Amino acid sequence: MTTVGILGGGQLARMMALAGAPLGLRFLVLDTAGDACAGQFAPMVVGDYTDRAALEEFASRIDVATFDFENVPAESAQWLTGKVPVFPNPRALATAQDRLAEKTLFRELGIPVPPFADVPDRAALDAAVAVLGTPCILKTRRLGYDGKGQFRIKTPADVEAAWDALGAQAATVGLILEGFVAFQRELSVVAVRGRDGEFRAWPLTENWHVDGVLSASLAPAPVDDALRETALSHARKLAEALDYVGVFALELFCRDGELLANEMAPRVHNSGHWTIEGSETSQFQNHLRAVLGLPLGDTRMLGHACMLNWIGAMPDAGPVLREAGGHWHDYGKPPRAGRKVGHATVRAEHPAELAASLRRIGEALGRQAQVAPVIARLG
Amino acid sequence: MTTVGILGGGQLARMMALAGAPLGLRFLVLDTAGDACAGQFAPMVVGDYTDRAALEEFASRIDVATFDFENVPAESAQWLTGKVPVFPNPRALATAQDRLAEKTLFRELGIPVPPFADVPDRAALDAAVAVLGTPCILKTRRLGYDGKGQFRIKTPADVEAAWDALGAQAATVGLILEGFVAFQRELSVVAVRGRDGEFRAWPLTENWHVDGVLSASLAPAPVDDALRETALSHARKLAEALDYVGVFALELFCRDGELLANEMAPRVHNSGHWTIEGSETSQFQNHLRAVLGLPLGDTRMLGHACMLNWIGAMPDAGPVLREAGGHWHDYGKPPRAGRKVGHATVRAEHPAELAASLRRIGEALGRQAQVAPVIARLG
Repeated sequence: MTTVGILGGGQLARMMALAGAPLGLRFLVLDTAGDACAGQFAPMVVGDYTDRAALEEFASRIDVATFDFENVPAESAQWLTGKVPVFPNPRALATAQDRLAEKTLFRELGIPVPPFADVPDRAALDAAVAVLGTPCILKTRRLGYDGKGQFRIKTPADVEAAWDALGAQAATVGLILEGFVAFQRELSVVAVRGRDGEFRAWPLTENWHVDGVLSASLAPAPVDDALRETALSHARKLAEALDYVGVFALELFCRDGELLANEMAPRVHNSGHWTIEGSETSQFQNHLRAVLGLPLGDTRMLGHACMLNWIGAMPDAGPVLREAGGHWHDYGKPPRAGRKVGHATVRAEHPAELAASLRRIGEALGRQAQVAPVIARLG
Repeated sequence: MTTVGILGGGQLARMMALAGAPLGLRFLVLDTAGDACAGQFAPMVVGDYTDRAALEEFASRIDVATFDFENVPAESAQWLTGKVPVFPNPRALATAQDRLAEKTLFRELGIPVPPFADVPDRAALDAAVAVLGTPCILKTRRLGYDGKGQFRIKTPADVEAAWDALGAQAATVGLILEGFVAFQRELSVVAVRGRDGEFRAWPLTENWHVDGVLSASLAPAPVDDALRETALSHARKLAEALDYVGVFALELFCRDGELLANEMAPRVHNSGHWTIEGSETSQFQNHLRAVLGLPLGDTRMLGHACMLNWIGAMPDAGPVLREAGGHWHDYGKPPRAGRKVGHATVRAEHPAELAASLRRIGEALGRQAQVAPVIARLG
């Protein structure tokens, strides 16, 4: 009997446990919140990720550790490696936690990135804005997610306000200035690498964000072969450079047919949720197969899939459940503004069928704006 | 938040909880065994199905009740209906628990059945053998499953031994004599009926048993349209007659192109396990949708699927996990002779691809005999 420890007990840990049960696995979740939604289907240790007693108990009851959350302190992850195997490795986690380290690595690997500059202090910000020009975006190096910890500098007059908003964090989590990319499309590669180095990727996914939070994903993203090959090659290079084990996502901007790496997420990813019904093997099961050294599952698609995120509160399930290819995912979380509380995946054999299904759902739920860009892309 | 109570905590309850989690449901399992495998993913009440205190506690913590086990005493199911909605209804459960009541209903509905006779005592057995002829099978009316509680009477000389083996049960669970059917194929309809009477069935499944226990299932069963329509019509009539709500299976013998009903299982069924990966909606999720009054999910197939049962102990997972369409289900049970401990489902777009996959798995696991009849059927 193998017990997998998961640091973080949100919906990613929950879906991982549900996907891992058929492999005969047991799970133990470490989270600071006793009511973390993964706890509905897996036993928990409640404690802070830096609480040594909680980590000791957690480590003593598991055979291998992984993450649902990339902001676990790297020192805690490092400490765990002395107790049990930890995948992905703490270096990969540390790199992905730091926008500057991550972008520096992208550049070293020949993966194009938008221009960026380290911003250790106010003088560096002025210098960086002078070089990168406006518009540009000041971001925290660490602990930012879903658009948090960001300030958009539209003109040089905004520099003062940007520093007021984020300057205090230069000395704590660090700051980075990124050139603004007028991209037309956002894509992601969700991929998995095994302990033995085997690499597999799901078909490219196209994503739409609203206020910095993922709103909808479409797979396969309609792109030409060359673009897809380039994206997969970037993902593979990155995984190899980090000796990565498990599932990760590489987010890319597409501007005039050119790909620019935005960031990597060292974990199963929201833009891969469609793999549960839309692919032969879900990202959740493949992450576990990788972490445990089992053969990786096939990443082929079953038709076409669109994922719609539910933010804040769950809508009425009826319109999705009434669609032949409609699948519902309620994370069992109380509603709260801005919180990811669930998603739906709609699967269909043909793009036109998927578009029709999304149109009906959008109308029934009054969410035409959420489905519109996906329908437009499906043509 | 809705909590579904499940009487019985075996693999069916376990897979039901895993399939119901995405609907935002919570589960509570009642089982006599504290280590029932569903308890690894759902909270439990441990107690006998007739233990009123356990039933009281169970009922007080749930919103609706269902079953993973058809031999729950009908009185307990009836008592529960005074506390919470119970699906399927106790009358359906009671009918399916009793081979005589079940076969009598089949006959009333015009569903052909093998000849049978009630055997209340030894004299009735002699009379029944004289009418039905040999070979025939003496079975307990209640509490038999997977070939248990059965005695095959090959010649009249076996009647004495049959009575010695089962006669004592005539006064407790009752006995029934069934004519032997020299069938060529075993088929099952796995179907679901909603609270509103909507009826849906998955494609017909062909089954192979070894020593009375399911060994392999293939879907869709290669049958002609007329046979399929007849089978579905039988299932629909049965569900309507019982005002059935939820998933059930109707097992059929096929002899010279004619269908004879063997028995019904008033629950999700082993011959429907392939629906997890092989169909748009699994039997487990559709059972819950029915029980909760939600729209039923689509029952279309995704290609072709074969389920292989693992009995006694789990084999090496590698050969299945290495197949592109290979999916593993370990129920988290300790090994024990004759026990269903897991299954694999292999999915493929085309029959030839499925056959090739099964051939590789059979060879790698030394289980050529288990896959051979399925491969033969796939042509």
